[in-house]
Amino acid sequence: MGDKHAAILLISCPDQRGLVSSVTEFIFRHGGNIIDLEQHVDSDESQFFMRTEWDLAEFSIARGEIGERFKAEVASRLGMQWTLHFSDVIPRMAIYVSRYSHCLYDILARYQACDWQVEIPLVISNHPDLRTAAEGLGIDYHMSPVSPQTRSEQEQRQLALLQDYNIDFIVLARYMQVLSEDFIRHYPGKIINIHHSFLPAFPGARPYHSAHKRGVKLIGATSHYATADLDAGPIIEQDVVHVRHTDSVTDLVRKGQDLEKIVLSRAIWRHLQRQVLVFRNRTIVFG
Amino acid sequence: MGDKHAAILLISCPDQRGLVSSVTEFIFRHGGNIIDLEQHVDSDESQFFMRTEWDLAEFSIARGEIGERFKAEVASRLGMQWTLHFSDVIPRMAIYVSRYSHCLYDILARYQACDWQVEIPLVISNHPDLRTAAEGLGIDYHMSPVSPQTRSEQEQRQLALLQDYNIDFIVLARYMQVLSEDFIRHYPGKIINIHHSFLPAFPGARPYHSAHKRGVKLIGATSHYATADLDAGPIIEQDVVHVRHTDSVTDLVRKGQDLEKIVLSRAIWRHLQRQVLVFRNRTIVFG
Amino acid sequence: MGDKHAAILLISCPDQRGLVSSVTEFIFRHGGNIIDLEQHVDSDESQFFMRTEWDLAEFSIARGEIGERFKAEVASRLGMQWTLHFSDVIPRMAIYVSRYSHCLYDILARYQACDWQVEIPLVISNHPDLRTAAEGLGIDYHMSPVSPQTRSEQEQRQLALLQDYNIDFIVLARYMQVLSEDFIRHYPGKIINIHHSFLPAFPGARPYHSAHKRGVKLIGATSHYATADLDAGPIIEQDVVHVRHTDSVTDLVRKGQDLEKIVLSRAIWRHLQRQVLVFRNRTIVFG
Amino acid sequence: MGDKHAAILLISCPDQRGLVSSVTEFIFRHGGNIIDLEQHVDSDESQFFMRTEWDLAEFSIARGEIGERFKAEVASRLGMQWTLHFSDVIPRMAIYVSRYSHCLYDILARYQACDWQVEIPLVISNHPDLRTAAEGLGIDYHMSPVSPQTRSEQEQRQLALLQDYNIDFIVLARYMQVLSEDFIRHYPGKIINIHHSFLPAFPGARPYHSAHKRGVKLIGATSHYATADLDAGPIIEQDVVHVRHTDSVTDLVRKGQDLEKIVLSRAIWRHLQRQVLVFRNRTIVFG
Repeated sequence: MGDKHAAILLISCPDQRGLVSSVTEFIFRHGGNIIDLEQHVDSDESQFFMRTEWDLAEFSIARGEIGERFKAEVASRLGMQWTLHFSDVIPRMAIYVSRYSHCLYDILARYQACDWQVEIPLVISNHPDLRTAAEGLGIDYHMSPVSPQTRSEQEQRQLALLQDYNIDFIVLARYMQVLSEDFIRHYPGKIINIHHSFLPAFPGARPYHSAHKRGVKLIGATSHYATADLDAGPIIEQDVVHVRHTDSVTDLVRKGQDLEKIVLSRAIWRHLQRQVLVFRNRTIVFG
Repeated sequence: MGDKHAAILLISCPDQRGLVSSVTEFIFRHGGNIIDLEQHVDSDESQFFMRTEWDLAEFSIARGEIGERFKAEVASRLGMQWTLHFSDVIPRMAIYVSRYSHCLYDILARYQACDWQVEIPLVISNHPDLRTAAEGLGIDYHMSPVSPQTRSEQEQRQLALLQDYNIDFIVLARYMQVLSEDFIRHYPGKIINIHHSFLPAFPGARPYHSAHKRGVKLIGATSHYATADLDAGPIIEQDVVHVRHTDSVTDLVRKGQDLEKIVLSRAIWRHLQRQVLVFRNRTIVFG
Repeated sequence: MGDKHAAILLISCPDQRGLVSSVTEFIFRHGGNIIDLEQHVDSDESQFFMRTEWDLAEFSIARGEIGERFKAEVASRLGMQWTLHFSDVIPRMAIYVSRYSHCLYDILARYQACDWQVEIPLVISNHPDLRTAAEGLGIDYHMSPVSPQTRSEQEQRQLALLQDYNIDFIVLARYMQVLSEDFIRHYPGKIINIHHSFLPAFPGARPYHSAHKRGVKLIGATSHYATADLDAGPIIEQDVVHVRHTDSVTDLVRKGQDLEKIVLSRAIWRHLQRQVLVFRNRTIVFG
Repeated sequence: MGDKHAAILLISCPDQRGLVSSVTEFIFRHGGNIIDLEQHVDSDESQFFMRTEWDLAEFSIARGEIGERFKAEVASRLGMQWTLHFSDVIPRMAIYVSRYSHCLYDILARYQACDWQVEIPLVISNHPDLRTAAEGLGIDYHMSPVSPQTRSEQEQRQLALLQDYNIDFIVLARYMQVLSEDFIRHYPGKIINIHHSFLPAFPGARPYHSAHKRGVKLIGATSHYATADLDAGPIIEQDVVHVRHTDSVTDLVRKGQDLEKIVLSRAIWRHLQRQVLVFRNRTIVFG
């Protein structure tokens, strides 16, 4: 996976006959060998979703023209919404962080071990604490302290930075500030957040305290795309761990942080593999 | 566990020095051999909890007097709230059920296999559907159809039945009616419910539909003691199972029902082992 | 799923270009609407696998001729191995059981609730204990007590019974006898067993005792197709539950039996959905 | 937990009456307030185990004399084996590592975030790769390349180093060399290893390849104390993650490494909390 030069198509459209056939025929006719294909029909919504990946080695259409040709030969006729990706194009990711280090360290450990095909040129933070960790790996660290008065101005500055660095998507690695609707609108389906509860339970602040107070026997973590509606965006990954009456809030935090970092990293990995489609505030996660 | 004739003490009191020492010294002095002992201190609340079980074989106090003696020698002085149980006293359980059979069948399968030390003399239902299953095992099945007009009257009839049958505790095995506050007050900490979500997410009706709509990646089941506050009582057991975008509501129901029956049966088992203490809407679940 | 009259194709062949395209084009050309399609390429083995399900409502080929036409138009040319199924054809299942009731009761509960599209006309057992449970649901119960001397003879009798009852597949619901290689050869990929450990750990007898002795922190259950090699057949489903030092062998059995019945029932469900393909002692489990 | 100055007693002895009573009476009599107490009786072996932690604030025996007094007043008479620890004594840990970084990075991230009460002065490796990561946190990194010819000599050098650094216990963070029986004998119950399978399945080399070949539906990780018998020591922690036919060996490695680091870190945490007792190749893990 990723070794080959492959093209990836993500498709969504109203369901009808002949969709898979049309797409696979297009790939086959032009000499592509399908490496992976997954389709899903949401029968309540009569909506069709598909992800397919094919080897470009003997594909007869030049890279730069695949999109146009797919549109002309298949997509327009069938009313498809689609995006085209190439497995050898390395996405550029920015990380937002505050003071908690566990998610950042987990991402950086993978980055350093070259586990992911990603470039991380930029960390943005409202605190200075984690500068050394980023800069030690050659990642620029920009301080952007936010107050209610300065938020709008800081966000403008951040948007400029993100553009300067050619950022494709953003990871909020336990970033403790709320981003404005306006900011989020610039990166639809491209801001991955981690929330420290199994949403929709315990949205907002201090979920471990709320979980302890409610006496739940499980705590969770949820990674989702940020939307204007706080902690209510489309969920990519969730997981839980069992807890007992013997666990204090401190214990919940300790156990929960292990979940947070793993769940967030799984979500990033799926995003990098172009496995995620969003439809009506839900995700289709292929693979 | 349960083979021996054992006494079980459940204790709760403000924390102070010497609590474990006083209780264990009492047991030791009178010839008891401790089979199991677990204690917990809620340090936020400075509250002490303990469960201990000891072999009665050579215990020098007669059964009928253990409570009095414990009170006189230990509990009064230390301000303990406590309950005393005997492992060879078989509790009597009533089941409430509507039309879903999976939880009832699961309980009856265990009953028939003698997995639990329990007597089940009575099933109460607002539907006739599951009569045969109960009566086939010699369990009386009482129809109690409930409408907003008749609820109060039916509940009075039910309370009389529960008393006639000497019922110790009640299991709501996917019973689809809401019990009144007044009814619940008759069985505090003695009505075990199963809710088909990981509470506090998706309380109330149709949680699988809500889960599907929200696009969660986990569904759950929660067993708790019923309180006046619907789906908000102290949680005994919870578990989850992973789901994907490919799962329809029907799939969630299918996967969820397996959870429901297992989670409910685990909660019943813990209740039967006298492993559960309730404090401020949370449970301490020993073992 | 299953409401519609649908055809299901399970395909396996050496990987090459145009496989998905050829199959979907065949379905599309004859008026079929694909409900579900999943494909997988084992790149180590260069082997292609596919499961597709399509609505027959407007399919232009008569049921009885679909196989022939698919062979002629697609399968022969591409060297495919394939099986064709219809979602409205109800398979007939036989259950083998000994004295443990939990798996049998779990299956019968689902049967009685009409959760599965299956017919269960026959239970075979080497013990009389569970006769009532089967016969209560109108299922014939055949005693077939087995000793080393009589095994061969009994298996011949069983094979005749299975044929008389037109049995499609067999479920060993904690059947405590070993079936001969010869017997198993009559039902390749059609005998589903449940083993009470996470295989390949603890094969053979008394896995809970072995697990306790080894001090593992997890116990498991594995459902697999029976092969001549005991407990080494292709695995369909596995799951585990955490255990602690406080759990005696009896506790492991209690916790494990809940796993066994759920894991076995999941495997049966997948088999009934025709979601399972076997290749080189491994399963491809679609869905 | 850990904020207070507390003493911790770990006790093991043949079961008899009055054990808990004697220990708690000793603590109470000398002014100690029990923070935590857990006991377990292995009824097959008639062996008693106990962990108790008490606040030293008003304890009347000086630290240096607690052991002697406990021995004289309680332990000798009752034939107890015991160890005494103090929560404010910070253990010193050495890490062995080869080339895989994920476990090391995970430990160092926690170290840097001060999540654990531990001192890590020393990393020993047979490869130079991870030197920077260690030295960046001020941890000495000693190269100790091992070949069959040099192993014995290198181990002698390592033992000297461990002594020089006053190391209390060792963590093998995916260290790919086998330690000699002689070496292990120097640190009984003090070498924590992580193995990348759910033991006892897939011991030895390349467990992910074996798991893939066997077609299991779960992969696991196991942390255990190293003993002379490879991968057969007492298990501290285990966990698993579900896998599918779509997962290649590379996918198993990716998913498995997340397990490995979390399972290892949980085991280290329990060791640091002095929650682990070893008896007959099994662990009692309190808490």
